[in-house]
Amino acid sequence: MTDTAMGAGLVSIADIELAADRIAATCLRTPLLSAAGAVPPLWIKPESLQPTGAFKLRGATNAVQSLDAERRSHGVVTHSSGNHGQALACAAARAGIPCTVVMPKDAVPVKVTATRRWGARVVLVPISERASACAAIAADTGAVEVPPFDSAEVVAGQGTVGLEIVTDMPDVMTVVVPVGGGGLISGVAAAVKARAPRARVIGAEPELAGDLAEGFAAGRRVSWSTEDTAQTMADGLRASAVGDLNWRHIEAFVDDVITVSEDGIADAMRYLATSCRLVAEPSGAVATAACLAAAAPGWGPTVAIVSGGNVDPAQLAAVLAASTG
Amino acid sequence: MTDTAMGAGLVSIADIELAADRIAATCLRTPLLSAAGAVPPLWIKPESLQPTGAFKLRGATNAVQSLDAERRSHGVVTHSSGNHGQALACAAARAGIPCTVVMPKDAVPVKVTATRRWGARVVLVPISERASACAAIAADTGAVEVPPFDSAEVVAGQGTVGLEIVTDMPDVMTVVVPVGGGGLISGVAAAVKARAPRARVIGAEPELAGDLAEGFAAGRRVSWSTEDTAQTMADGLRASAVGDLNWRHIEAFVDDVITVSEDGIADAMRYLATSCRLVAEPSGAVATAACLAAAAPGWGPTVAIVSGGNVDPAQLAAVLAASTG
Repeated sequence: MTDTAMGAGLVSIADIELAADRIAATCLRTPLLSAAGAVPPLWIKPESLQPTGAFKLRGATNAVQSLDAERRSHGVVTHSSGNHGQALACAAARAGIPCTVVMPKDAVPVKVTATRRWGARVVLVPISERASACAAIAADTGAVEVPPFDSAEVVAGQGTVGLEIVTDMPDVMTVVVPVGGGGLISGVAAAVKARAPRARVIGAEPELAGDLAEGFAAGRRVSWSTEDTAQTMADGLRASAVGDLNWRHIEAFVDDVITVSEDGIADAMRYLATSCRLVAEPSGAVATAACLAAAAPGWGPTVAIVSGGNVDPAQLAAVLAASTG
Repeated sequence: MTDTAMGAGLVSIADIELAADRIAATCLRTPLLSAAGAVPPLWIKPESLQPTGAFKLRGATNAVQSLDAERRSHGVVTHSSGNHGQALACAAARAGIPCTVVMPKDAVPVKVTATRRWGARVVLVPISERASACAAIAADTGAVEVPPFDSAEVVAGQGTVGLEIVTDMPDVMTVVVPVGGGGLISGVAAAVKARAPRARVIGAEPELAGDLAEGFAAGRRVSWSTEDTAQTMADGLRASAVGDLNWRHIEAFVDDVITVSEDGIADAMRYLATSCRLVAEPSGAVATAACLAAAAPGWGPTVAIVSGGNVDPAQLAAVLAASTG
């Protein structure tokens, strides 16, 4: 981490180390799994094994644990297509404070059910009204709004994924990270560049939600319509743009952004189920899809983050039953 | 471990600790995963995440690493319905020695392919000729026969699963273990009773391959026909009886043996996929099925071992698509 980077308000490795302590009692320290036979050598970081089924628990837990007693007392609120909502609900339950989650009406049912299971109140609204509904609840109740990705505490929590990768594999050369709003890649890239500066960090997006790939190539943050991004099966990566704080981390730390097809995502879900015995949701399989489609020997030892595994069983069954042709 | 137990030629905790050192470079130290919302509290030990997809890599690696240079030089041979064969193939590849695996002609294709992928020679024979074919190859080539379960080195290797459980959760009260030939439960029970003597160890079998449940109730080892045991979908648990060494461990250390229905196994596969994001093969889901069907609050903190995850995608898809009714 350079002074310049710190001066720009980016999350530091010290922030991420502090987050690692805060989340240790709630989150799983996930292992690296070797993907047999892959060239270049590929390891999977299975965040799908977190108690809520996705990496989002790390950022949400760090955000909740960072609040003082007074701010905690009114609870927390967020809007989320699913995994961040479950994560905040779980983090709030562990802290003993109330939680409200605003979700889009078309969220996959397994995610709505899972959010309620952690004790949160769920409010369903049209997808375009998520942010305003969330802000209104915060204003009415005094609850602290915990955004899904555009937050230093959330980024620092997600960065613990990167800290664990470089701790377990100091010679990692390439880390591939799925990108929606950019919370995960922001934190992971900050950790990797601080501890293993020779390693490359690559973002992976669905072609159908490729706002960051377009923006990264153009050197400026771009936004896609929610109607456009809604077309990908990777429902966790439908953010119309990365956040402001996230864009600044990506500019500072990320080496490349590549996109994958919908067929490639399905292929990766099958690969993870058969070769790694992991259930991945479509969003969770995007980094693996990028490795299967684009990895070259020059990438060196590579880690793909499987960001989540909350998928409707019927969708997973359909993907598994489909031929790979 | 009592002097009496040691006198009976049982595997000791020292044997298991030695095995833990021998396998550390080859096998994954699997985490315990919390199964949200279960009563009593349930944790999953996901051996499905081993590089070969099953716990068998532990015993095979310990057996190979225990051989001196002269005995290694002729390679190793075994017979296996699948996971032990893959495990020995992988362990032999890591040690740089040749490996032959005798498999039944009806083994699931994914297991045959996976065994060959580790570089082993695969010989397919009728299921009733497995043992004789294996012995003939050993006699012809000088290869060391590594049996799937009836071996002190294999039992000690599998025991590392139990050692990890009691290390990570010293207050565990119940450990549930799938039983085929009895290698896993022998080692796990030896480790648990040495380190957490108040904890109970329970075997779990399919009703359709319930030879140990019958024998445990009768106080003597019984054998079922391979035609009978072939009826269960849990193809890894079709051994017609537990081994001799295994029976002696079970008599000494195991508290109970319970059976589960085929529907219960399928329910557990769905539960593991949706609640824990794990792909389990039918055999691998049997201990979880026992917990879902029979666990009571008095069991206390409970660990179910998911022994493996090598399942044909089409079979997993069919199980996931089926209703739970």
